[in-house]
Amino acid sequence: MTGIGDTLKSLGGTVNTRLRELMDVMCEPGILKDAMNYSLTAGGKRLRPALCLMTAGMFGDAARALDFACAIEMIHTYSLIHDDLPAMDNDDLRRGKPTNHVVFTEAYAILAGDGLLNCAFEVMLKYALENKDKQPECIRAMSIIAGASGVTGMIAGQAGDIAFEGKEHDPDVLQYIHTRKTGAMIKASVLSGAVLSGAAEHELSALETYGSCICLTFQIVDDILDEMGDQTRIGKTPGKDAGADKLTFTSVYGIEKSKKIARRQTDMAVKALECFGQKAQTLSALATYLLSRDR
Amino acid sequence: MTGIGDTLKSLGGTVNTRLRELMDVMCEPGILKDAMNYSLTAGGKRLRPALCLMTAGMFGDAARALDFACAIEMIHTYSLIHDDLPAMDNDDLRRGKPTNHVVFTEAYAILAGDGLLNCAFEVMLKYALENKDKQPECIRAMSIIAGASGVTGMIAGQAGDIAFEGKEHDPDVLQYIHTRKTGAMIKASVLSGAVLSGAAEHELSALETYGSCICLTFQIVDDILDEMGDQTRIGKTPGKDAGADKLTFTSVYGIEKSKKIARRQTDMAVKALECFGQKAQTLSALATYLLSRDR
Repeated sequence: MTGIGDTLKSLGGTVNTRLRELMDVMCEPGILKDAMNYSLTAGGKRLRPALCLMTAGMFGDAARALDFACAIEMIHTYSLIHDDLPAMDNDDLRRGKPTNHVVFTEAYAILAGDGLLNCAFEVMLKYALENKDKQPECIRAMSIIAGASGVTGMIAGQAGDIAFEGKEHDPDVLQYIHTRKTGAMIKASVLSGAVLSGAAEHELSALETYGSCICLTFQIVDDILDEMGDQTRIGKTPGKDAGADKLTFTSVYGIEKSKKIARRQTDMAVKALECFGQKAQTLSALATYLLSRDR
Repeated sequence: MTGIGDTLKSLGGTVNTRLRELMDVMCEPGILKDAMNYSLTAGGKRLRPALCLMTAGMFGDAARALDFACAIEMIHTYSLIHDDLPAMDNDDLRRGKPTNHVVFTEAYAILAGDGLLNCAFEVMLKYALENKDKQPECIRAMSIIAGASGVTGMIAGQAGDIAFEGKEHDPDVLQYIHTRKTGAMIKASVLSGAVLSGAAEHELSALETYGSCICLTFQIVDDILDEMGDQTRIGKTPGKDAGADKLTFTSVYGIEKSKKIARRQTDMAVKALECFGQKAQTLSALATYLLSRDR
């Protein structure tokens, strides 16, 4: 049996191949396409699309969720490009490479972000157009994704990040920002794959709990790595968020308590999967992996 | 019989009311919502949503297209907010009011634009979720809109605008940019309404010709107004595009030849509607109106 690291690598490869195919069909050659591809191929972990494929595979054929998984990665990438802009977080380095606006100018970085968000919906809609028997599932999955990436989800989290920068380190504010900025899209990745494969409502409910727990673990480990990690492994300047007086789990709870919360969330994530038995083995291994990752 | 001006005003009112309702349901109160609403209610002509409602009304009930019409206006508004950013056209004035980033900062203007694009899809998807008997039509209409607003449509036009600024005044480049930057969304407005009301393929084909013609007229008149118009009427600094050495119809063809092209396109637009008889009276009047408008 291969480990979860190998599974993630294999799913990531599948996603990368499909992303290349989709981009070649959807974009005319030029600087805009180059800018979009630059960030899309900058070597992300592909966690979100992998989650979407894993839950789709639990209830049916993972392949039917591949284009949705790619759309989710496009949305994630657009959010990183816009977050890094000078007017936002003003980051020069992302995943160990110069950020999009540093390479392509701010104008193209704004358009590349806009383009990736739009492409995500184009990809999902094209799949829905071509799979008429799956249209109700596609519409529900798109709604889940659009809700998570929108102004009560990811974009609200980013706005909160700006509004609360330098303010008091309040656990409620941390919770508000985190559940929207990172949590919403991770949960949507888990749910959309399951919806596409026709999971039942009680199954979606268990997966929602799982999603909430692993995204908290993911964010806490991110904050710990940012404070302690090695630049070459995490691909950005360690301590940057703490330096900018950003609200993080480590700044609110300290490192030891943060680790404890992450461990408890992982236990709860694994417990939420019990109703699925053996079928949820990969998701369960992933929860443990997210707790112990070092980049 | 009321004139086309009154019809546009009435449809605009319907769209404005629904936009307010949608925004109140979709957004949490805060600066992000304020920034989105600021540009959404800045007094646009609502041409695109009006076109969508008009063609929906030709083949069925216009009301069923109202949320899609609002989504189209959200996409149009997001494109204006991002176009005005310092890194793009760097405009301080839009529709006679300070631009979004001047009032809310660049960071919020970027997020407000992202938010409106995302909201557009949320609105359409919510309608599709709630109208199960209309899902195939909804998916097709969403695909048309997403294609028009994307990286081979509006976003490609904006990228072309940047890439060719200050370059030779080439009619082919003008055509390339115009059909994408303005033309694509106007055509999508015409087609999406008709698709939602179940228009037949040959009817969509006639409307496509109509859409291509009126959007050329619309852009030419825009360029003429920009060069000759009165600032208080058009709500932006006249001559700004010419001053920035932007590619415009007047800079390529001169004013008289531009007017002649616009008149010919209007004739062709009206002719394309002949197959619909009396049913296309409003669309026909609109084509003539777009030729003679002074703001």
